[in-house]
Amino acid sequence: DHIIVCGYGRNGNQAVSKLLAYNKNFVVIDHDEKVLEPLYDSGMLYINGNATEDEVLKEAGIERASTLMCTLPGDADNVFIVLSAKQLNEKLKIISRATKESTTYKLKLAGADNVIMPDKIGGDHMASLVVTPDLVEFLGHLSVSRQEGSINIEEMDFDHICTDGQEHAIKELDLRKKTGCTVIGYRAPDGNYSVNPDPDMIIRKNSKLIFIGKPEQIEKLKQTYKD
Amino acid sequence: DHIIVCGYGRNGNQAVSKLLAYNKNFVVIDHDEKVLEPLYDSGMLYINGNATEDEVLKEAGIERASTLMCTLPGDADNVFIVLSAKQLNEKLKIISRATKESTTYKLKLAGADNVIMPDKIGGDHMASLVVTPDLVEFLGHLSVSRQEGSINIEEMDFDHICTDGQEHAIKELDLRKKTGCTVIGYRAPDGNYSVNPDPDMIIRKNSKLIFIGKPEQIEKLKQTYKD
Ligand SMILES: [Ca+2]
Ligand SMILES: [Ca+2]
Repeated sequence: DHIIVCGYGRNGNQAVSKLLAYNKNFVVIDHDEKVLEPLYDSGMLYINGNATEDEVLKEAGIERASTLMCTLPGDADNVFIVLSAKQLNEKLKIISRATKESTTYKLKLAGADNVIMPDKIGGDHMASLVVTPDLVEFLGHLSVSRQEGSINIEEMDFDHICTDGQEHAIKELDLRKKTGCTVIGYRAPDGNYSVNPDPDMIIRKNSKLIFIGKPEQIEKLKQTYKD
Repeated sequence: DHIIVCGYGRNGNQAVSKLLAYNKNFVVIDHDEKVLEPLYDSGMLYINGNATEDEVLKEAGIERASTLMCTLPGDADNVFIVLSAKQLNEKLKIISRATKESTTYKLKLAGADNVIMPDKIGGDHMASLVVTPDLVEFLGHLSVSRQEGSINIEEMDFDHICTDGQEHAIKELDLRKKTGCTVIGYRAPDGNYSVNPDPDMIIRKNSKLIFIGKPEQIEKLKQTYKD
């Protein structure tokens, strides 16, 4: 039930630092011995090998892994690895990087669940700094990562919120009064999202609420409903 | 008062499509005639030239531009352009891409206000899909861009909210009742942000509130307070 990260370049490096912050189990594969050097005494698992070879994926435990991340710079390599991995473990969740737009479709055909194009995300971000600078600044202040020791957005399942197992309207639960947090989203049992749900909305079984708050309010939320 | 976009690769391309959506004035510079071909009959302004040459920057109107975006693949080129541009127009807002971490500092020394590293943003995003998938999904449903004909987050100045020019507590204004929108942030006059501000918080002059809402609620907000 671990994560395999193919490629330890800038992309893979950043992904790994986030996985570490969340105490996830992972193994890194890179064919370049030099980029793996910083991992030697880190206690992190790595394999010096080529992820395009089935043997290397097997050595990384692909058959029992939960997730594969392909971060290689070459689109062809990523497509090849996704195809191989899917054959070795059909249940694998696969996230891949792509350079060219046209690769996105190929990666999805090969079995990738999510495709990330860093250049597109980067270009979009650059323009946002011009067209909505204050909003970018605000979103940059929101931490959704435990990495920085603070978190502003958290989700909570029906089971944790409606402790009696009954469906309630959001306003019945006095969530703001009890925790200080504000409800900003609702994920319905069918996976549809409502942004800024109405206080009268009924929280259904198998749904989730999304909250915003200061770190201490999020902490209060978790203590109140998760512990 | 226009934007100069240096480089029309994937990064520049994506930035331009966002600028277009916001009806911003811009001119694209690229030394590669071929990448500019799609712009020929678009009505968009472009210069086929090398942005590392002062003459080309001048031709693009650098002296009267508001913003420069450097999206070139080479870090040295971006640093060079930032330095040149800052000499030609000291007031320019400069946003640059960087590939290597170590370039970030050099770009800021040279005069860049914001530095974007696409590989880092991409790697971070990939890991987020594993460690906080539901939150990524929710944030993905938030549109901060008029591009898609819907917007979920908007900011509003003190002047628009406190129409009598007096400072009021957030709760006095009944914003949720009047618009349906929820206040999720406050930008103080000194530029500091409060996430999920207290309803008792006083809205100071020269501050801003940040709202979340469904597109029709955001529309109501704008109609109520901006028109
Ligand atoms: Ca603004
Ligand atoms: Ca989750």
